[in-house]
Amino acid sequence: MPVFLNTRDADFENRFVALLGAKREDSPDVDAVVADIIADVRARGDAAVLELTAKFDRLALEASGLRFSDAEIDTAIATVGAEDRAALELAAERIRAYHARQMPQDDQWTDASGATLGWRWSAVSAAGLYVPGGLATYPSSVLMNAIPAKVAGVDRLAITVPTPDGEVNPLVLLAARLSGVDEVYRVGGAQAIAALAYGTETIAPVDKITGPGNAFVAAAKRRVFGKVGIDMIAGPSEILVIADKDNNPDWIALDLLSQAEHDESAQSLLITDDAAFGQAVAAAVDKRLETLERREIAGASWRDFGAVITVQDLDEAAALSNRIAPEHLELCVADPVGLSQQTIHAGAIFLGQFTPEAIGDYVGGPNHVLPTARSARFSSGLSVMDFLKRTTLSQMTPEALAAIGPAAEALAKSESLEAHGLSVRARLDSLNR
Amino acid sequence: MPVFLNTRDADFENRFVALLGAKREDSPDVDAVVADIIADVRARGDAAVLELTAKFDRLALEASGLRFSDAEIDTAIATVGAEDRAALELAAERIRAYHARQMPQDDQWTDASGATLGWRWSAVSAAGLYVPGGLATYPSSVLMNAIPAKVAGVDRLAITVPTPDGEVNPLVLLAARLSGVDEVYRVGGAQAIAALAYGTETIAPVDKITGPGNAFVAAAKRRVFGKVGIDMIAGPSEILVIADKDNNPDWIALDLLSQAEHDESAQSLLITDDAAFGQAVAAAVDKRLETLERREIAGASWRDFGAVITVQDLDEAAALSNRIAPEHLELCVADPVGLSQQTIHAGAIFLGQFTPEAIGDYVGGPNHVLPTARSARFSSGLSVMDFLKRTTLSQMTPEALAAIGPAAEALAKSESLEAHGLSVRARLDSLNR
Repeated sequence: MPVFLNTRDADFENRFVALLGAKREDSPDVDAVVADIIADVRARGDAAVLELTAKFDRLALEASGLRFSDAEIDTAIATVGAEDRAALELAAERIRAYHARQMPQDDQWTDASGATLGWRWSAVSAAGLYVPGGLATYPSSVLMNAIPAKVAGVDRLAITVPTPDGEVNPLVLLAARLSGVDEVYRVGGAQAIAALAYGTETIAPVDKITGPGNAFVAAAKRRVFGKVGIDMIAGPSEILVIADKDNNPDWIALDLLSQAEHDESAQSLLITDDAAFGQAVAAAVDKRLETLERREIAGASWRDFGAVITVQDLDEAAALSNRIAPEHLELCVADPVGLSQQTIHAGAIFLGQFTPEAIGDYVGGPNHVLPTARSARFSSGLSVMDFLKRTTLSQMTPEALAAIGPAAEALAKSESLEAHGLSVRARLDSLNR
Repeated sequence: MPVFLNTRDADFENRFVALLGAKREDSPDVDAVVADIIADVRARGDAAVLELTAKFDRLALEASGLRFSDAEIDTAIATVGAEDRAALELAAERIRAYHARQMPQDDQWTDASGATLGWRWSAVSAAGLYVPGGLATYPSSVLMNAIPAKVAGVDRLAITVPTPDGEVNPLVLLAARLSGVDEVYRVGGAQAIAALAYGTETIAPVDKITGPGNAFVAAAKRRVFGKVGIDMIAGPSEILVIADKDNNPDWIALDLLSQAEHDESAQSLLITDDAAFGQAVAAAVDKRLETLERREIAGASWRDFGAVITVQDLDEAAALSNRIAPEHLELCVADPVGLSQQTIHAGAIFLGQFTPEAIGDYVGGPNHVLPTARSARFSSGLSVMDFLKRTTLSQMTPEALAAIGPAAEALAKSESLEAHGLSVRARLDSLNR
């Protein structure tokens, strides 16, 4: 049974803090194994990747078979049905349109001193995207990672996907094709991350690696960070729904279950200003759990980490929401836009009862890779910015240097950095001659 | 003696790769010590911080003395001379003006399906800035970290600075005052990072920690990452100067030395299309090294990691520059703006011979916290973006859900996520009744 809390209860604060602090994930410590795999791939390249693939994916390949050929991709995606293809195409189009609007502008200006200043954005040259294989292979994640990279202007985008026993999801290959991915490799695990970061004879190294993965993949991403850029290391998924009594309890129950079914460690929270509505939603969850395909997983998540919190009013709901800083926040209230002004810390907000969170997972347009574990306090979901970097630009005229150089010289002296000051002074002296 | 390379030499590629791969920093492994310090501060709060401060900074404090009072700050900054104060004020004003232009825009639109989409930027609520004490205490770094935070709208900005034997640099306190810093604490090392991340009775926890520090500070930042956001872990400083023969060798020598004097692990590189000019710069470096205050440090850096590379033409220079992806790039050539179009991967570019890199360290306006160790291939310098996060917004109408919901349902089915599909289907069915 999930936790039922009420802000009127004397022990509310303690129980809420316990809920916030609940450890939902036991990451196995695989760092030593992963370090060995990375060292092996760095030392032996393709040979190591092929051995590890034979071992973990039960797949014997030659180096020439590591990469999917265009013909292999064509054959696989030809098996995708028309409805699935149309759905992926609609999703790709909407994700592309949303992310195209995120492209930042360059800027340049000349200030009163005569100094010309500005910045310029440029894309990462090469990026790698890890796609999990087996059960949790999500074509939607391919779209959500690959499209922002291509919109940003990444020239070379490579995917690695494990193909246990040679099996691959044709929808993953179709999503890659629709996203403009350049290369797809049959590799998974830490060996895929190592190959992307350091390169092998067959797989050229990239500059940035994104995408979800298991504990081995996460540990490998941490280890190669610095050599390449990485995206966030995502934790289990979360949703907070704030709903008043004028909602269908079954709809809200399904929204809670759509996070819970991801993972036994997922967390679904409901905040309502009506205790009876909260009970009705909990009852609707129980009813849906009788028949849901993934009821084992969703039931465990709801039982261990679910909560229904009754508040006095929606201001209180907003304050609690900001302390939770949820990955997904659904506002099913009379004035969702108004309430959203108060809920500052959230990865993605879904406004109103006709915006179930699942829309955002697939076809809304915004990214579904979002900050988990309260990190929406300080970080953002995936975007084109993750595949861009900014170079600052400065150009002094002799007059500008004369105007601001002496201050630089003074500060350099105060920091005992003589050469810094001299590099300015030598130029200033040339102007006075 | 630095390395002299020429792209015409048969062994150039091997020697250039060796130069790129040179390990410049031996980070001592202090992770175990740091883990203990963090655990101690989490468990005992102020008491642990005070004990560690007495031990490492030889400073006996009560909890009430951890924070600088306004009066203490007033007294200290009254000792700053007029020239230094004016220089810091000019720097603060220019840094503020530059970073104010970086503020990103919110956006919102309604698309053809009737879906309203967008995003909203908001500031991190509380940030902490680590400022090193002792020799390497740089007031300019306070400005460069604190001003972007305040421009972004961070409500609460706390500084921690160790004060060995009670000593503090008044310029650091003045820089904090000019930047609008809210709280300044006499704490350093891993204990400062732990206090900022987890909070103590006196120091409230923050959401994001930035700022440079020694190996203990860097290890502590890595450990608290996830609980809070952190900025990059910076490596030793680097400069690449691309200069043709129409430059004063002494100016270029001083620019190279202004990086070399930071640290024995710093790296200063010159690329020129004129071998004789390269020799002249090397001679000018040697001459300046005879008298430079920090000649021990700068000399070691130049000897161990410096290089002069002669190229055939500036196209070749640009190509090498992109492989180096330098933190600082100075273009002292006839057409620096033109060359900058080709040098894509760099933290900051300084255009023309009147823009010594030292201008950017202090008063140019752009940030001096920049990506090192080739990470300009995938990351950017510090900016207001480091203190902001983006929340995506979606609102469907019934019509929009009818238009795009079926595609979400199809994709949810293909990913075996039944509740996702049902959360959309339940709403769609209500429209058909």
